[in-house]
Amino acid sequence: MPRTRGYFHPKTATGLASLIPPPPWHYSGDLLTVEYRTDPARVRELLPEPLAPAAEDPGAVAVIWADWQSCSASRDELLDPVRSQYKETLVVVRCSYRGRTYSRCVYIWVDTDFALARGLHQGYPKKLGSIHLTRPHPYGPAPRIEAGARLGATLAAADRRLAQTVVTLREPSPHHGFVNAHPMAHHRWLPAIEKGRGLALDELVETGAARVEGGPSWRGDAELELFEAPTEELARLEVREPLGAYHRQVGVVWDGGRVLERGTSGAE
Amino acid sequence: MPRTRGYFHPKTATGLASLIPPPPWHYSGDLLTVEYRTDPARVRELLPEPLAPAAEDPGAVAVIWADWQSCSASRDELLDPVRSQYKETLVVVRCSYRGRTYSRCVYIWVDTDFALARGLHQGYPKKLGSIHLTRPHPYGPAPRIEAGARLGATLAAADRRLAQTVVTLREPSPHHGFVNAHPMAHHRWLPAIEKGRGLALDELVETGAARVEGGPSWRGDAELELFEAPTEELARLEVREPLGAYHRQVGVVWDGGRVLERGTSGAE
Amino acid sequence: MPRTRGYFHPKTATGLASLIPPPPWHYSGDLLTVEYRTDPARVRELLPEPLAPAAEDPGAVAVIWADWQSCSASRDELLDPVRSQYKETLVVVRCSYRGRTYSRCVYIWVDTDFALARGLHQGYPKKLGSIHLTRPHPYGPAPRIEAGARLGATLAAADRRLAQTVVTLREPSPHHGFVNAHPMAHHRWLPAIEKGRGLALDELVETGAARVEGGPSWRGDAELELFEAPTEELARLEVREPLGAYHRQVGVVWDGGRVLERGTSGAE
Amino acid sequence: MPRTRGYFHPKTATGLASLIPPPPWHYSGDLLTVEYRTDPARVRELLPEPLAPAAEDPGAVAVIWADWQSCSASRDELLDPVRSQYKETLVVVRCSYRGRTYSRCVYIWVDTDFALARGLHQGYPKKLGSIHLTRPHPYGPAPRIEAGARLGATLAAADRRLAQTVVTLREPSPHHGFVNAHPMAHHRWLPAIEKGRGLALDELVETGAARVEGGPSWRGDAELELFEAPTEELARLEVREPLGAYHRQVGVVWDGGRVLERGTSGAE
Repeated sequence: MPRTRGYFHPKTATGLASLIPPPPWHYSGDLLTVEYRTDPARVRELLPEPLAPAAEDPGAVAVIWADWQSCSASRDELLDPVRSQYKETLVVVRCSYRGRTYSRCVYIWVDTDFALARGLHQGYPKKLGSIHLTRPHPYGPAPRIEAGARLGATLAAADRRLAQTVVTLREPSPHHGFVNAHPMAHHRWLPAIEKGRGLALDELVETGAARVEGGPSWRGDAELELFEAPTEELARLEVREPLGAYHRQVGVVWDGGRVLERGTSGAE
Repeated sequence: MPRTRGYFHPKTATGLASLIPPPPWHYSGDLLTVEYRTDPARVRELLPEPLAPAAEDPGAVAVIWADWQSCSASRDELLDPVRSQYKETLVVVRCSYRGRTYSRCVYIWVDTDFALARGLHQGYPKKLGSIHLTRPHPYGPAPRIEAGARLGATLAAADRRLAQTVVTLREPSPHHGFVNAHPMAHHRWLPAIEKGRGLALDELVETGAARVEGGPSWRGDAELELFEAPTEELARLEVREPLGAYHRQVGVVWDGGRVLERGTSGAE
Repeated sequence: MPRTRGYFHPKTATGLASLIPPPPWHYSGDLLTVEYRTDPARVRELLPEPLAPAAEDPGAVAVIWADWQSCSASRDELLDPVRSQYKETLVVVRCSYRGRTYSRCVYIWVDTDFALARGLHQGYPKKLGSIHLTRPHPYGPAPRIEAGARLGATLAAADRRLAQTVVTLREPSPHHGFVNAHPMAHHRWLPAIEKGRGLALDELVETGAARVEGGPSWRGDAELELFEAPTEELARLEVREPLGAYHRQVGVVWDGGRVLERGTSGAE
Repeated sequence: MPRTRGYFHPKTATGLASLIPPPPWHYSGDLLTVEYRTDPARVRELLPEPLAPAAEDPGAVAVIWADWQSCSASRDELLDPVRSQYKETLVVVRCSYRGRTYSRCVYIWVDTDFALARGLHQGYPKKLGSIHLTRPHPYGPAPRIEAGARLGATLAAADRRLAQTVVTLREPSPHHGFVNAHPMAHHRWLPAIEKGRGLALDELVETGAARVEGGPSWRGDAELELFEAPTEELARLEVREPLGAYHRQVGVVWDGGRVLERGTSGAE
């Protein structure tokens, strides 16, 4: 009997049709990050056991718009860019696990299937959305990266606008914010195929970039609006206090993570 | 510590944001099915252990276009149809497991995220695609369901056409074909988050409709074309002998499946 | 020198590439219509000279969702349905011209380029949008056409929801409403290519179906919500008094119109 | 009677809802241009009277992929980028009119409605398509702009791939090619609303950028593939001899054109 191959489904004789290739995955991208404080209780309610709120600033939230080109080790996808380019909006909080601070993505929307599937593997709770962000440009009306530059970004899903921001850049920054600055503590969950049997997969994993390179960060101010929608809870993370905003171009490699615990989340 | 809720990610305090609701899932849909024979070796290479080729007609394939409206028990999604309507193209073969014949979906494309996530749960190897099929209609130029009616259907993914058919209906049929007529034997697979550690989830499951109702089937002939694409292997299931085509309207309930075996697929 | 051919651009040696074929255009479709009264001044401000408000009920508005399959005389598009199927939401008012009552489409969104181009030719002020409407179905959870059936419909453009409705059917109706029941009085406008020179094309035309066939209408009630957006004015036509709602399946032929006046609109 | 306002439809009391704003229109964008020679007869058949083939190199063709951010004088659209960003693929040839050489766009696909409407105003024969092109990036796997950099670009419409290229950059270039280097000679055509009455609008116009700024061009080689499709004729412009390829970032202002002749095209 032949063996089927492929890092993800569909598995075939050759592995060619797999929705995603094996890691490492390589990324070039632009990041626009907006940080603010919400009610810490609204963050805490999104943290299943054994995660606890971060010891400091437990209500901090980052909403990040990213414009990516990603590829496998072969880099073939870059030359057929419908298989490489995607955009995403992710919402990140911090938490504490065994005395260490982690970042954790609590909501995320992407606009391609390969990004959705990769996220599922990595414990990102991905949905599809429509994501747009202003691209700095050296000519014409689009902004240069400089003091006073204004960048907009929007998110919609199911034909409803969920979030929008306008960021004004002020000055170079030695960092790109503090909320998404830790390894990620994510859960990989899949329900049992039998009804009422709970989870077939319940892993707490640590994941993050194997390597990051990037240009200078710029810091600025942001106006951020979050909108209600019948199947979304992003607006529960209401903006209480704006903290700042950042722009940066980066190159990233992802090459796997590790299991921290299994079967302890108590999630339904 | 609060407990997070939700049948699928993202899990929240309320469970509202979950990409998919708990079963039962209800469906109304129109099915256009094209059956043919390919090289049985091409079917066999898609069957991981412990599955074996079907004892009879092991090269039979069904390519099915479906136009769905689906919803949870509340039926709320039907009134916000961007959350209910989707289309799909699935490719089904048959196989044998412990002496019983099963159907098995080897390729499938859908056009929404909730359908993609449900499929992942059910062991369907879903990708996103662009799917179209002629809708019969009682007025104007669209076809009625009657002898001589012609229905077209197409599939594209990543900006390439992958399949197209034109079906001509001939007569009522007592059945809707034989390839997709059995319970499904599917694998639920997810790689380990650590590189090189194989699969974190490897289940052979049996799944299928809890209930089906429907109208009369019509039988006819089909011209079917499959096209090459750099990340697809559908065209390997080449058309050797056309068998027939079917149209039917159905109502379906899905309400869970059961595990047949764990950890035996030998898949990479 | 060869002659270029084609009903619309691009014109070529064969005419094959034209975005739209020559009329007659044939349509099969399902219509969901919501009628209400708004401030008559808000309708009047959308009527350029020489149009005047309708003599009776000048504040009446119809918002119509339609799910179409359309084709040329060859009907070829029906078998490659990506070239045939589209959905639209149109907003219709009535007006008076030389003592006769006309219908007039003041806003309309469609989801394909061929429908956009046809509309431009016919004087429909089309934009692209994302349109969804519940499809009645004989099996499963989707509604049958019967008393108590509930049908939803939504419209979005530029990633913002612009309108949504839920219609509850009550009883068969001898008609399909009164707002969209007249020939259309539309303007065909195109600015001059030189700045500040006004309009290069300024025609008041009468247009409408050459033939209509259809099934029984059903009448019911509707909840209709209109939402603000930075580049839309639909919400100015605020709902003051609901009038009713209708569902019907139709077949339509469009085969040209006629010019009523040229150069008199006074539009900028 | 109030006057309706708006540069394009829909015209309203305020003009706010117009699909496109009045010029000037401002653009920031990246251009990837592939030039080649085809059979001059295939170019000539696309030139209606009074246009003649270019005196020199009459079979030269440029296929150009562009990634744009565009806005009105207010620049508001840049901060709501779903209203600003779009991509296009255009096919340009040269022609001769009254002894002067013009460029002329014979096919073009864009991915937004506002770009489609602007093109119709400017005489570009726009359709909707799905367009992708590799974006150079300073970090990660995406290419830098340098010798040896490889950039891919693709075009699809109606769920079929129509064109794809891979460009390898070689060296800086003092120019960005010669095919799209002249003012454009375009036709603005709209059929009469009455059947069989020919054209209601038939203008030969000259149009082009009011201002262009930009960075250095890079020159390279390209592999270009054109594919057949039932409603497209791009593949008739078959590649006989590759000429070269170019990459450049630009800022452009468009601010109107001028009529060269009216009513002389002899087009159907």
